Amino acid sequence: MELLEQKIRKEGKVYAGDVLKVDGFLNHRMDVEFLCLLGKEFYRLFADCGVNKILTIEASGIGIACLTAQFFHCPVLFAKKSKTLNISGDLWRSRVHSYTHNTDHDVVVSKSYLTKDDRVLIIDDFLANGSALSALIELCGQAGAEVVGAGIVIEKAYQEGGRLIRDRGIRVESLARVASMSDDGSIEFC
Amino acid sequence: MELLEQKIRKEGKVYAGDVLKVDGFLNHRMDVEFLCLLGKEFYRLFADCGVNKILTIEASGIGIACLTAQFFHCPVLFAKKSKTLNISGDLWRSRVHSYTHNTDHDVVVSKSYLTKDDRVLIIDDFLANGSALSALIELCGQAGAEVVGAGIVIEKAYQEGGRLIRDRGIRVESLARVASMSDDGSIEFC
Repeated sequence: MELLEQKIRKEGKVYAGDVLKVDGFLNHRMDVEFLCLLGKEFYRLFADCGVNKILTIEASGIGIACLTAQFFHCPVLFAKKSKTLNISGDLWRSRVHSYTHNTDHDVVVSKSYLTKDDRVLIIDDFLANGSALSALIELCGQAGAEVVGAGIVIEKAYQEGGRLIRDRGIRVESLARVASMSDDGSIEFC
Repeated sequence: MELLEQKIRKEGKVYAGDVLKVDGFLNHRMDVEFLCLLGKEFYRLFADCGVNKILTIEASGIGIACLTAQFFHCPVLFAKKSKTLNISGDLWRSRVHSYTHNTDHDVVVSKSYLTKDDRVLIIDDFLANGSALSALIELCGQAGAEVVGAGIVIEKAYQEGGRLIRDRGIRVESLARVASMSDDGSIEFC
């Protein structure tokens, strides 16, 4: 998506440790009107897939997921990073390794809200090694829900997550695919 | 807001430990079309206040904040619960006590994204003891930003948070104000 690539080139910053910082519009300060355009593009891509639920993961996926869901007229379910006192009852549960924080944690959703009747579009801000996305797919598998695909804002295409998940036959649509980033701040797209 | 009170009466569940569970539409599964109506109501209440930024706190405030921001045509900034590797640079920082989790943690926002030029509407899903809202107000104070008010979906009016914050001269608009909850599941509104 040309508009997104321009935005990343203009506002994104590359830091040591393979960090692409886009917190000016995507995952800290959120440029809501711009994110709506991304949501509209996800709708264009998945409009004919019978999506009746959008699944994401806290925290930075929630904004883009909600703005996207308006086009699909469906609810959003966000996976929580651990069991809290506010979720009781039975949970679907899977494990995520966060390379950013170098920790493992569980993600959970209530069994009441993810079932075999769901046709799920997974939405997230980033795809790199694929650990979070795999965990969300695993939750859908536990529930017997159908994953119609994943809509990702920015994929680090030089990491293996996207390939591994596409190799499993799952449709992954990334609005920007980063081919490489350099320490001088330059960003190349696929 | 009558529509919200009906929704809480119909779908909310009361649990021991003063828990009002509304995770079927507000803070786990999110009924996006319904939350848009709440966003529109926040806009009606604060339309003439010159709001140019909405501030919330991860994770469950983000969805309602983004949906509300569309009416104000302004960005959302969400406070993060601790310093992560993805936020570098200078941060405004304040302390929240979570009664739900019985822990203290810092919340932070980047100084770049909250400044003295901001007229801030704070949006959150719940107001009870006021600890999270106080922390967000404190961040605005550090930045020299003007808090035009706080828009809350559900206030537990029998707890002291709302009163303490209104006593400081800050406008707090809660769309539903719970007067009492009983173990038999009944909920009374103010």
